[in-house]
This record gives sequence, C-alpha cells and structure tokens, in this order.
Amino acid sequence: MRRQHYEAGHEEYRSAFRGFLQREVVPRQERWLAQGIVDRDVWRSAGEHGFLLPWAEERHGGLGLTGFRYEQVLIEELAAIGETGLAIPLHSAVVAPYLAAHGTPEQRDRWLPGAVSGDVVLALAITEPGTGSDVAGMTTRAERDGDHWVLTGSKTFISNGVHADLVIVAARTDPEQRHAVGLFLVEAGAPGFARGRKLDKLGLRSQDTAELFFDGVRVGPEGVLGDPARGFGAIMGMFAQERLTVAAGCVAGAEAALGLAVEHAKGREAFGRPLAKFQDTRFRLAQMRTEVDVARAFVDRCALAHEVGDLGPADAAEAKLFASEVLGRVADEAVQIHGGTGFMWEHPVCRAYADARVQRIYAGTSEIMKEIIGRALLG
Amino acid sequence: MRRQHYEAGHEEYRSAFRGFLQREVVPRQERWLAQGIVDRDVWRSAGEHGFLLPWAEERHGGLGLTGFRYEQVLIEELAAIGETGLAIPLHSAVVAPYLAAHGTPEQRDRWLPGAVSGDVVLALAITEPGTGSDVAGMTTRAERDGDHWVLTGSKTFISNGVHADLVIVAARTDPEQRHAVGLFLVEAGAPGFARGRKLDKLGLRSQDTAELFFDGVRVGPEGVLGDPARGFGAIMGMFAQERLTVAAGCVAGAEAALGLAVEHAKGREAFGRPLAKFQDTRFRLAQMRTEVDVARAFVDRCALAHEVGDLGPADAAEAKLFASEVLGRVADEAVQIHGGTGFMWEHPVCRAYADARVQRIYAGTSEIMKEIIGRALLG
Amino acid sequence: MRRQHYEAGHEEYRSAFRGFLQREVVPRQERWLAQGIVDRDVWRSAGEHGFLLPWAEERHGGLGLTGFRYEQVLIEELAAIGETGLAIPLHSAVVAPYLAAHGTPEQRDRWLPGAVSGDVVLALAITEPGTGSDVAGMTTRAERDGDHWVLTGSKTFISNGVHADLVIVAARTDPEQRHAVGLFLVEAGAPGFARGRKLDKLGLRSQDTAELFFDGVRVGPEGVLGDPARGFGAIMGMFAQERLTVAAGCVAGAEAALGLAVEHAKGREAFGRPLAKFQDTRFRLAQMRTEVDVARAFVDRCALAHEVGDLGPADAAEAKLFASEVLGRVADEAVQIHGGTGFMWEHPVCRAYADARVQRIYAGTSEIMKEIIGRALLG
Amino acid sequence: MRRQHYEAGHEEYRSAFRGFLQREVVPRQERWLAQGIVDRDVWRSAGEHGFLLPWAEERHGGLGLTGFRYEQVLIEELAAIGETGLAIPLHSAVVAPYLAAHGTPEQRDRWLPGAVSGDVVLALAITEPGTGSDVAGMTTRAERDGDHWVLTGSKTFISNGVHADLVIVAARTDPEQRHAVGLFLVEAGAPGFARGRKLDKLGLRSQDTAELFFDGVRVGPEGVLGDPARGFGAIMGMFAQERLTVAAGCVAGAEAALGLAVEHAKGREAFGRPLAKFQDTRFRLAQMRTEVDVARAFVDRCALAHEVGDLGPADAAEAKLFASEVLGRVADEAVQIHGGTGFMWEHPVCRAYADARVQRIYAGTSEIMKEIIGRALLG
Repeated sequence: MRRQHYEAGHEEYRSAFRGFLQREVVPRQERWLAQGIVDRDVWRSAGEHGFLLPWAEERHGGLGLTGFRYEQVLIEELAAIGETGLAIPLHSAVVAPYLAAHGTPEQRDRWLPGAVSGDVVLALAITEPGTGSDVAGMTTRAERDGDHWVLTGSKTFISNGVHADLVIVAARTDPEQRHAVGLFLVEAGAPGFARGRKLDKLGLRSQDTAELFFDGVRVGPEGVLGDPARGFGAIMGMFAQERLTVAAGCVAGAEAALGLAVEHAKGREAFGRPLAKFQDTRFRLAQMRTEVDVARAFVDRCALAHEVGDLGPADAAEAKLFASEVLGRVADEAVQIHGGTGFMWEHPVCRAYADARVQRIYAGTSEIMKEIIGRALLG
Repeated sequence: MRRQHYEAGHEEYRSAFRGFLQREVVPRQERWLAQGIVDRDVWRSAGEHGFLLPWAEERHGGLGLTGFRYEQVLIEELAAIGETGLAIPLHSAVVAPYLAAHGTPEQRDRWLPGAVSGDVVLALAITEPGTGSDVAGMTTRAERDGDHWVLTGSKTFISNGVHADLVIVAARTDPEQRHAVGLFLVEAGAPGFARGRKLDKLGLRSQDTAELFFDGVRVGPEGVLGDPARGFGAIMGMFAQERLTVAAGCVAGAEAALGLAVEHAKGREAFGRPLAKFQDTRFRLAQMRTEVDVARAFVDRCALAHEVGDLGPADAAEAKLFASEVLGRVADEAVQIHGGTGFMWEHPVCRAYADARVQRIYAGTSEIMKEIIGRALLG
Repeated sequence: MRRQHYEAGHEEYRSAFRGFLQREVVPRQERWLAQGIVDRDVWRSAGEHGFLLPWAEERHGGLGLTGFRYEQVLIEELAAIGETGLAIPLHSAVVAPYLAAHGTPEQRDRWLPGAVSGDVVLALAITEPGTGSDVAGMTTRAERDGDHWVLTGSKTFISNGVHADLVIVAARTDPEQRHAVGLFLVEAGAPGFARGRKLDKLGLRSQDTAELFFDGVRVGPEGVLGDPARGFGAIMGMFAQERLTVAAGCVAGAEAALGLAVEHAKGREAFGRPLAKFQDTRFRLAQMRTEVDVARAFVDRCALAHEVGDLGPADAAEAKLFASEVLGRVADEAVQIHGGTGFMWEHPVCRAYADARVQRIYAGTSEIMKEIIGRALLG
Repeated sequence: MRRQHYEAGHEEYRSAFRGFLQREVVPRQERWLAQGIVDRDVWRSAGEHGFLLPWAEERHGGLGLTGFRYEQVLIEELAAIGETGLAIPLHSAVVAPYLAAHGTPEQRDRWLPGAVSGDVVLALAITEPGTGSDVAGMTTRAERDGDHWVLTGSKTFISNGVHADLVIVAARTDPEQRHAVGLFLVEAGAPGFARGRKLDKLGLRSQDTAELFFDGVRVGPEGVLGDPARGFGAIMGMFAQERLTVAAGCVAGAEAALGLAVEHAKGREAFGRPLAKFQDTRFRLAQMRTEVDVARAFVDRCALAHEVGDLGPADAAEAKLFASEVLGRVADEAVQIHGGTGFMWEHPVCRAYADARVQRIYAGTSEIMKEIIGRALLG
C-alpha cells in the first residue's frame, strides 16, 4: 500500500535535501568519521540551502515550512545515508524550539537568524554525570547575583557540544526546591564556560558529543530563557517532540539497515545460492520488514497528531519505545545476515548497529518511556 | 491521541451492535460455551437487526454499508465481549464475499438474501486433514458428469461447520493440474454430504468447528461458483480481506485482554499494595499498551487502504502476522498478571488466552505470512 | 553426549514405573480427562507397587530410595506420557516431606504408611483466594481453644483437593504477627471441613484442583505440625524442593512436547515435502532442542546439589524460572509446528500446551522467582 | 550451589595466570586498544610462564596439563578482564591442536616448542572474502608442482593475522572436488605471502585481525599438514573444540558483563535510590543471572564430556549457540542498565558489548549451529 503521509511540498523539500546530502555530505562522511566530527562549514551550507529550522519565519530567514513532517523529511534523508554526525534534527527540531517557544521576541530575533543560517549551532545541556533520565536530580546550580545568574556545574553527553555557539543550559535555581530549574543561554567563549574532551563513543562517531563545564559563568537577563523557576515544566513540554524526532530517526534507520540486509541477502551466496533463498534468512527479513512497516505507520500517525496538537506524552513515549526497539532488533539482525562483514567498521551496517544502540538510551531510556506509558495507563 | 479511524456512520452502527450484543449475546455466552455451540436463532436475530453482511445491497435485504470499517466495527465489538463462537465476521467478511465477487446474478439473488437475514449460515471448506496452508495440496476432487460435478473427499477445521446451511467447497477439478481447483455450493441436506463430529478445541469452544464429508455429492451448474478451473486464484484473491479480518480481531482481542489485565492490576493486591504499583507489572502493561496501539495503527491503515483497493497481499500478511503475534504476547502476559486465576476457565482472560492461540495458525500460519512477505521483499 | 545423571538403581526404578504407567495409567488417561479426575484406586495401585514416597523408610512401608533423583524418575515418566492429573510428585516430593521433616515420630508413624500405600492422598493448602505468592498475606486463622486449635477460612487452587484424605493447612496463629503461621493436619470428614467445586481449568484437566473451606474445624495437639508459630519458615524451607520438582517436570514436559513436534515435522508433508525439510521449521526445532538440553543440564546439576544439601533458594528459583519458561516456549512452538491440529484438544500437543501455562504461575510465579534471585544477587 | 567443575590443579593454574594478567596485561590494555594490537612480547612472556599450550608435552616445553578445563581457565581469566586482543585461546586451543592432531612427528617437533614458548604465534586461515561458514566454497587453491604445492588466493578475518609467525592455510587441492581441501603451513616471510591491512572492527579492537594474501606461495612436503585431500574432514573434526572454546568465552564474558551491571546497579542512584532498588532493573538482573548460570552449567557439562571424548558436533553447536546468545542478551542489558555511560567507549561494558557481537558470527554463525543441531535431531 502507498504511504500517503507526505504532500507535494514535503517531497520537493526532500528532493532538494537529498541533492544537498549527495553533494555536500556523502563525499565527506568517511573523513568526518575519521576525524570524529563534521566540518563546521557544512552547518552554514545547510543553513544557506534552507535545511535548518525549515519552520522558522521569513523574518528570521526561515522558509515558514511548518509541521513536523518537514523535520521528518530531514530526519529520514539523513538516516538513509547513515549520517548521524551532522545533528540537524537536534538543532532544528529539539533545541531551536526552546527558543521559539520560550524566548522573548528579543531572544528570538537575536538567535533564530543564526540558527537558521547555520552561523549559530545549538546545543542543549541538561544531562549530568550521575543523572541521566532523572532530570530533577541535576546539581548544576544558578545563583542570583543582582539581575545576573551565576552558573556552576558540569554537563555531559552533550551533542553538538564542540561546535555549539549557543548552549541552553538547565540549572537548579533554588536549592530547596527539587523542580525549580531555569534555562540559561550560554555563548561560546563566555568566561568560565569550558568544553571538555569530545567523548569517544561506540557509535555516532562523527557526532561531537562533549562534556561542558560551567565555573561561575555569568548570565544576564537577556540570557534567561523563560521563567527561571519553571524550566522543568518547559523541558517536559519539549520532550514529546524530541521523542518523536528520535522515533522517526529510528524508523528511518531501521529502513536503511533493512535495505542493506536485503541487498546483501540478494547478492551474497552461500552453499551455492543467494542467502535470500534460505528460508530462515527470508523469514527474518520478512519479520524485519513487518516491524519496520508497523513502526512507521505508528510514527506517521503520531507525526500527524503532533501537527494538530494531539500528541500526548504517552503517545510520544510509545513511539520512541517501540521504534527504538525495532531499530535495535533490525540492526542486530542486519549485522547477523552480513556475517563477518557486519562486524567490520568499514561496512555501513556495522556503523548502523553501533549508532542504533544509543537510541534506546538517550532522550529518555526505554525504562523511562515505560514509566510514562504505565502511569498514563494505570492512572 | 484520538484514533480518528471511524466516521459517524460507523459509530452509530457500533452503538446499535453493542446494544444487540448486550441484549442477545452476553446473557447466553456461558451457556453457549457449555453446550459448545451458539444457538441457531441468534443468527436470525443478528440478521434481522442488520448485523450480517452490512455491505449487501438493499435489494438483497442489506443496508448498503460498504467499506471494511463496518466489518471492523462488528469484529471489534464481538472481541470486546470475548465472543468467538458467533462467527459473524467469517460469515460476513470472509465467506459471503465469495458469493458477491464470484457468483452469477442468479447465485447472488439465490443466496445473499438468506445470508443477510441469517436464514443461511455460510461456511467455507478449503482445509483438509493433511493439508493446512498448502491449499494446492488438497485431495477432495470434483469429477464432471455431464453438466454436473460429483464431489468426493473430506474437509476439516470448518468454522460454522454444524450450523452451515450453505458450504462453499473447494475441490480439485483436474487431477493433472495442481492449481485447477473449483468452488462448489453445497447445501445442507445434499445427498452424500455429512458433517462429522464437532471438534473439541483448546479455545473457541462455542464455535462449531467441524469435519465435513463429501461422498459423491452432486452439484449442478447452478452450484458452480466462478470458473471451475480458477478457484485457486479466487481463493488467493479473497485472502487479503480474510487476513485483515483476523488482524482486526487480534487487535481488538488484545485490547480486551489488556483491559482485563489493567483492571486486575489495579484491583488485586499483593504484599499490601495493588499489583499496578509494582514496577515490573507496570512496565509489562506499558509494553502491552504500546504493542496494541502500534498494531492498531497499522491495521487501521490497512483497513483504509483496503477500502480504496490499495491493500496488497504482503500488507495483509504483515497485518495478520504482527497482530496475531501481539495478541499472543498480550494474552500470555495478561494471564501471567492474573496469576492462578488466569488459569481458571471461568475467567475471561483464560478463555482469551485459549482463543488467541489459533490466530497465529488459521487463515494462513505465521510461517505462510512470512513466505508471502519475504517473497514480496526479495522478488 | 551421554546424560550421566542416573545410576543403575534409578534406571531400574524407572523401568518398573514405566511398566506401571503403560499398564495402569495410559489406558485410562482419556477417561480421566473426560471425568476431570483420576480414579481413586490408581493411587492405591501406585502405592502397592512402590511408586509413592520411594524415600520412605521400610518401617513405614517405603523402599528407602533416598535422593531427589528417584523423584525425578517419577516426574519424568509421568511427563513423558503427559499425565498431569495423577499428581504423584506433589504427594511424594512436595507434601509428604512436610510430615517427614516437621512431624513428630507419632505423626510420621500415623500418616506416612498410608501415604506410602496410597490409602492417604495428601494435599497442601496454603494458597487463598486473594493471596497467591504472598504467603504471608493469608487470612485463614487458627485460634487456640485449650489444647486445640480452631481453623476458619478458605483455600483455593488446591491440587489433590478432591481425593485428599489428609490436608496440611497453613493458618495464621497470631493476628498481630504477619509471619506467625502454623501448619495443621486436617482429615477428610473432619467436622467443618468442606470441599468446594472442582475447578475448571485451562489445562491439568484430570487433576482435582479444588477449593477447600474450613468453618471452625477443630484440630487437636496430634494435628499440629511443627511449631505453630514457625510454619512460615517451614514453608519457605520446603520451597526449594517444590520448585525443583516443578523444574524437573517442566524439562521433561518440554522434552515430550519437542518429541511430538519432531515426530510431526518428520511425518507431515506440506508443499510436497516433510516439514522437517523446511529450514525455518528445522531451525526452530534446533532452538527448542538446545533450550531443553540446556535446561536439563541445569536442573540435573541442581538435583545433584540438592541431594547433598547444597541447593540454595536462588538456585531453585533459577531452575524453576528457566525451566518453566523453556517449557512455555517449547510448547508454544510445538503447537505452531502442528498447525491446526495443535489446537485440537484430542492431540497431546494441545493438552501439553494447556498444561504448560500454569507452570510459570504455581509454586511461585516467575515474578516471585525473579525477586528471590534478584535479592540473592543484589544483597 | 557450588560450581564443582574444577580440581585443585586447575585453580592453582588459574591463580598463576591471574597474577600474570594483573602484572603484564591489565596495565597495558588501554594502550593495546589504542594501538589496535597487543605487544608482540606479551606472547613470549605468556609462553615463558606456561600459559600457552598447557597441554603440550614436556619434550616440547609444555606442562602436560591436559584436559579442556585448563584451556577454560585461560579463557575465563582473559574474559574476566575483558582482554579480547591477546588471543591465547585461539592459539592454544584452536590452532595448535591442528599441529598436534594432524602433524607428523617432525612437524610437531619443529613447531610446537615455539608455539609453547610464544616465539611462534599461530593463525588459522580458512575464511575467505565471499565465503564465511561455507567452508567448502573456498577458492584459494593449492596446485601441485613436483613435490611442492603452490598456493594462490586470499583469506580474511584472520585472527592473529599480523603477529602470526606460522599460518595454517586451507586451500582447495582438486578443482573438481568440492571437499578436496588441504592444510598448508606457511611461515611469515615466505615469498608470495603478504598481509593486508589490519581490519577495523566494531569490537575486539586490540586483536590483530587481518587479510592474508597468497600469490604463488611455495610449500614443500614438510609444510603439508595431514592428507592434502582430507583437510575438510580435519577442519570439521576440530570444530567441536573451537566452538566449545567460544562458548566458554561467552559464558565468562557474560559473567563479566553481569558483574559490571550489578556493580553499577548497586552504586548508581536515580530518583534518589540505587538502581538496584528498582524492580524492573532487579528483575532484569535476575534474568541475566539465571541465563548465565544455566549457560555455564551446560558448557561445563560439555567441557567434561569433551575431556572424555563424548562431545558430539551437535553438543558443541548447542553450547556455542546458546552461550553466544546469552552473551548477546546480557551484554545488551548491561549496557542498558548503564544508560549513557554504557555507550562510552571508555567504559568496559561498552567494549564488552562491542566484543560480544562477533561471537554469534565467528566459529560458525548461529544459523550454522542450528543447521548442525537440526540435522542431528531430524536425521
């Protein structure tokens, strides 16, 4: 059956983005993996061509292409080429929306044009060493000093951590209250702000995940994003889109891994016939095909619901939980079908497997998703 | 998020059917289970109220409510009360469509009114002892004798086998050709046609599954359904709707089993607190909730595609495979959450578990589904 | 590789028991299933031939065949013929050991000879409606009245509940203390002791599982088993052998189900060749074979450790958890390999599937097993 | 329960090896990972201390410690420290046995002393690009030239490929006969023998896996190992020990990963309490504990059977299949329990996960294991 999820505008946008990726990303992917980080200039090029914040208003340099499906196009095309270093979805669909939703008009005017153009790469610093999914357990603190705030603490696992020109930092604003959290805008180069080493990871090896340190970083009123006592609620409110973003990436990643497995099964012979002729291989591919199709139908439904404001936290959690588990199984099977080749880093299926592992962990672990779903179910 | 699958007409129909079930079915279910068969008169009552063949044309007594979603309403409401003996979906969405699609105008005029009114319960006799999913392996044969055909052989696992007034029988019409199969209309009481014992099954215990025997049953030209050499293709062509029917039933059955588990988890205490307060139980329920929602999204998509003629055999196979596996897992977990109570036949969750087991087997086993999906994928 | 678990004595005993089963049980199994209970006289016959309490001392009429492996022989041979109604292992390896371990010399002399001869069928009444694995949550109470105790309450899911001549009943002896539980011997016919209906179950259909009611049943000093304040500990202490008994039954049951599947796969043809020639079927059988072999190796290790007093609660829990899960998977696959036939109650694989379901529930659910293992692991 | 698998001699050997590893391996592991290969001199040191070929006879410099359990000690201790680069088990228990079993006295005298001392690192070259488990599909050929053979072809995924001083190379000796394969001894430096690049892998990153090329390499009579027409049978004959070696490594690796997960669950807090206090985490750890214990019991049984010549190919296949699947599940869960930390290469659990993936692939994939088991089962 036909997918029927996208409209003509989405497909045009996809086509343009695909061309961009083929020209400017694919030829550099190997190098980016080797150097452990994408080139800084690709961000500006992506911005120039309209692939950052498609939803931004024209006055901020955007295309005004609203609706999650434009993000989904970007997510799918990046996944199709296995590009997990160039974290456009994080920038565009996860971090920038904080500015759009919680920024003052001045903050939006100050930062969105750069986020659109690629001059300002964005990062979001919530996770800390010792607190993962337990957002309220953070220890980074912001202390008032007149109309300024002084940030002290450290963050880890921060995507875009090396390239970021602007970091939205979550910090505790009242030591007495567990949920009193503020969000602060910290610019690269701010005194007291330092980046730690780029983290060496199982996968996502060209993504610049880093530790960030804040040692008395002063933030003025213009750097306070939203109510400094209510950032916890703001974070929770952004989670649905973040999880849907991850879910869409998982489906697309699983589709790509399945594609590699199908190709291999058709081309590779064992015992005198293609792998695809072995019933067990065929059945496993059929199972993978089914799970990917089913996951996609659900995530597409969620995307449409999200566009009309009807995606609840439990829906997003279900999408993230299911899609990331499907990706996990599909990537594992895809490696197995490749045999020894699947264990070689040079093969895309190997990198897909490595990249897949974190999807069940970040943006809320599978366990956190189950808590959210379970509570919604059991009241 | 809201489901958004049905329109007002479907919901009105659902409401009426739900009323019918509460009045005429629920009070008799225990008795039907004990006697191993539903009362014959409930078929007529269902027909009278418009719940058989909703899609039939007015001139055949039908309501002209076309589109698979009306069938889906019937399927869902039967599943919601755990009624698996009154096989309306089989009658309405699986067997009757053979008459509609392959019958002559005379055959349709002859049989559809009775199928609509419930005076003619329908059965479909394809499966044989020794051939399950291997339709082409059947041995029942139809031999030409002038303009008549003479049927000899036996069939098994035939739903509605005891109540059936009209049986569509598949038989091999050319011993030389594996795929030369005809479809024949055999009426109750036809000389040489006998019903064997009602089969004792793990579940579906009020459904009259039976063996049927054909010993020189003569069928005249008026009883030949479609081209007697091309019934194999006809059967294959009806499989998509049959599998979608089963898939929809599995999703609804899983929803019902999940409902029982949730209710039990909230109400039953262990070690001084409700089961729902145990994280493991809650997480398993969350997993079940997720799988049911995901399966439903996919089956709903398939239903809509089917209504516009866009449901391919592999799509239907994916729906049947996935939904029946979800039901299997959910019913198993639901029993486990009930503990010892779940093993007691008097509890609906126990019967749901027993009923669930056949869904991965009939209408094409999971293995056959994987063959279909695998071939479509691998060419 | 050879199993090397048994010695010559065990194999002689097995051979004798096998002969007994073929003569006195196999010909009556169908009838027992239909009547929902085994004949009472088979118990006496089993006793007469030495198949009850093989470990009992000669002065009690026993054979003095000590060591769990003699029980395991009984368990395995019953499982091999799918006999789950004649609950010898419960009688012999679960209930009688309470008398042996906690009875006074007088109590042992009074009851063990009958238990050995089959004149006294034993049952153990711990579980209550509303308390499953939560033993300490029981509400049946024993109140002191001089040197007697008066029992009030009800029990459910009691195996051998109809045949039982002697029931060991657990009751709370101090309403203030959650773990103050006593064990009391209640004879059939005791005033105030009534049996409820035989419970209708998914499987184990010839096993007389029943509810028991105690309405002011008076028990004299001779009927108090062990310290009436310390029965909780006694129960806990007997759990290791009970769980090992279930585990051994699961392994043997899985072996039997696998045997049925192998036989079917070799004999049944589809698409012109035996099922065993289909790679997917073959692989699934290989997986089943592997899991059964692995489970057996572990349970055998546990049995030997138990014979020398080295089986800890967590070991027994692991054996019960793993073996019952293997049985669950193997029985499910065995049904699937049988196709429609597997859903027919008359086929042993169907009954094996139905019987299997309770193994993950009784004698402590899988969840309770995980609690035990988890606590031992995490301190 | 106590393990009871080893005797005093094994434990003494373990203790000595553990000391060696702590002194000479642990301090260098990080560097080996960074350089992608272990230091050459550690082989000599291991040899000097008696940790290579413990089974070798004294006249070859060995200790005469026969029986697989000595190998198992080496395997377990390497796994316990996560050392997968120093491939002693491959050298000692997989490759050297070819020399012992199929070498002439001259060949044994020529090569075993070096293998024992660590001066001669061994490799086995069977796998080729394009043939994985299909040994008979190899294309490397050996052509006769007088009493010499000339080898042409290439091999891949060869462990110890860079360090190897002696490579046992399998080559087709008769183009007409699919199973006519010979085994040839090729020394480092032989004209026409070249090593390709060290392969970059998902895991085992300090193991020197390489491609090897043979371009007209001449091998004299002294380099022909066994009957040059019957090497296929020789290879098959060595598989049982190879698979048992892998299985033992998987169990030990799973134990190590479980240990990391337990430690993390006890030490790391979330939402104000240790992870170990969350029921879901605890249950998953209990499941892991169970699977590891069960796998170990089976592999230990196999090891003992192997010592007395009673381990069949299907037994070894079951051990390899089951243990590698347990490792896969346990390593995956261990990462999940670690959260984001588990995705960081610097954490041992991350490397364990990466290393684990190949275990279901090499030494015969899980699919090949199932073929072997299935054939043994179904005849």
